[in-house]
Amino acid sequence: VTGSAVGVDVGGTKVLALAVDSGATVLAERRVETPADGEELLEAVAGVVVELWEAASGSAGGAVGVGMPGLVDPTGVLRFAPNLPGVVGLDVVGGLQRRLAAARPGGSGAVVVDNDATCAGAAEHLAGAARGVSDAILVTLGTGIGGAIVSGGSLLRGANHFAGEIGHMVIDPSGPACACGGRGCWEVFASGSALGRLAREAAEAGRAEDVLARAGSAAAVRGEHVVESALAGDEQAASIFELFGYWVALGLSNLANLLDPAVVVLGGGVVRAGDVLLEPIRRAFNATVEGAAHRPEVRIVAAERGADAGAIGAALLALSAG
Amino acid sequence: VTGSAVGVDVGGTKVLALAVDSGATVLAERRVETPADGEELLEAVAGVVVELWEAASGSAGGAVGVGMPGLVDPTGVLRFAPNLPGVVGLDVVGGLQRRLAAARPGGSGAVVVDNDATCAGAAEHLAGAARGVSDAILVTLGTGIGGAIVSGGSLLRGANHFAGEIGHMVIDPSGPACACGGRGCWEVFASGSALGRLAREAAEAGRAEDVLARAGSAAAVRGEHVVESALAGDEQAASIFELFGYWVALGLSNLANLLDPAVVVLGGGVVRAGDVLLEPIRRAFNATVEGAAHRPEVRIVAAERGADAGAIGAALLALSAG
Repeated sequence: VTGSAVGVDVGGTKVLALAVDSGATVLAERRVETPADGEELLEAVAGVVVELWEAASGSAGGAVGVGMPGLVDPTGVLRFAPNLPGVVGLDVVGGLQRRLAAARPGGSGAVVVDNDATCAGAAEHLAGAARGVSDAILVTLGTGIGGAIVSGGSLLRGANHFAGEIGHMVIDPSGPACACGGRGCWEVFASGSALGRLAREAAEAGRAEDVLARAGSAAAVRGEHVVESALAGDEQAASIFELFGYWVALGLSNLANLLDPAVVVLGGGVVRAGDVLLEPIRRAFNATVEGAAHRPEVRIVAAERGADAGAIGAALLALSAG
Repeated sequence: VTGSAVGVDVGGTKVLALAVDSGATVLAERRVETPADGEELLEAVAGVVVELWEAASGSAGGAVGVGMPGLVDPTGVLRFAPNLPGVVGLDVVGGLQRRLAAARPGGSGAVVVDNDATCAGAAEHLAGAARGVSDAILVTLGTGIGGAIVSGGSLLRGANHFAGEIGHMVIDPSGPACACGGRGCWEVFASGSALGRLAREAAEAGRAEDVLARAGSAAAVRGEHVVESALAGDEQAASIFELFGYWVALGLSNLANLLDPAVVVLGGGVVRAGDVLLEPIRRAFNATVEGAAHRPEVRIVAAERGADAGAIGAALLALSAG
């Protein structure tokens, strides 16, 4: 696969569009806010794509990939998106094809739409930390937990392209309420947001002095403060990562028992912390995965494509679709 | 694929060997007890295979499939088997090939070894309730919970052929201890053994009169008594299935969020109960799976190949290996 494509990552609050070449290099970017209405959203996405086409003076390829935060069916219709309540049932592929065909003589090339975490996983699989790995799990610890599964060298899609919804794996049915309406989902314990909650509890209990000083008040503590504090060598921040790492590892070992990956790639802002976070996760994982002493070690590594992974992966998926 | 093969299911207490044709019809069977020692186990398995070959007067094909209760690596070495403590590191393929080559002029044909639940899943996928389904999950509710995953038309193997270990998915880290050394594994709540425990608790609390009458004493209550009682229309047994069905569904919806199957096949003795068990599971599943209102219904059905599934699937896998 050669050439270039535009990849778009639609988030709950912003839209990121990147022109990306087949080597996963970012050529140009555009950002806009995410409109609440479905038709306006399609208009905004088509707008940034056309801007990137125009900026590239025709050198950006016509293929377009879009990652959406929800369940996208194989025909490109968004079926369910908790963070975009106005857009259930939106025909993203059809709506974009219509708008883009008008803007580009000769047609727009392939338009593919997929789940945003699937796109981010594709970026790590095709051009990141899981490059060349046949069996991998790609996990993004953000507001929630997103995931993608690579099995036998390909993204695992499922019957309706809805596979990889790992954040709502229930790990404690009597646990705290989740935004999805359930209780005790993994993302309640192990997302970036959950790290912030753990850190606020530690700050309120007097067990996070450096973290508290960085945030200004216990209520203002976020996961990023723990990351900064831990990177500066603070032991209390390291203790928060020990507890957080246990919860991350609990879900990862469930996934590893099911899927037997060679590599687990962790993304999201918290992985900036590096080994001070990854080591507690690795220790807890090896203590809980089935038959740890009798199987090759599962490598647990940080993602390489950062916050651009969703848009890069969307572009790479569009390129491979032609 | 045509012809016939011998499939062997090695359990913790008994070995079942079946001569099976390519249409999954059972032609002949042999049973022996499972020796505790690895070399004796190989001797016993080779013995029943040769008996079936001799009984068929040469018409049984030379391919042999073996299902083992543990983690079997791609070279046919049993890496970890909690219920066969004497046999870790056993080279099952090599040991059987040596023994069988001597017994059959011209060699034994393919010898394949796989996890027993993977074999049972193969039987349901190739010749049972998931026939023709590209994305399915196959779950056996027995002493523990075994599983196999079909994705994109093929068994999902993972990096070391260890995928599908669904029973040790932790769903409550502060839950009861599991035989694996962990806490709150799914099989603690939703295996056939767990049904027996729920029923004993109900009997002791005076909420399972018919079940208690069938068993004779609360301590003697087993899952099969609940099945019999429920099939006879007993409402207290149906209430036990409501609670048990909740726990089964909790794990199934985790799996469905991850894997997006079109069909879930449930096996094990308890599924003899039919809809009086399956209906509570379906209700609880649809209440917990993500975006249930926005996705095609996942069909939850009973397995068709019963207790022979492991040996039948092992034979079919051997046949397709040549």
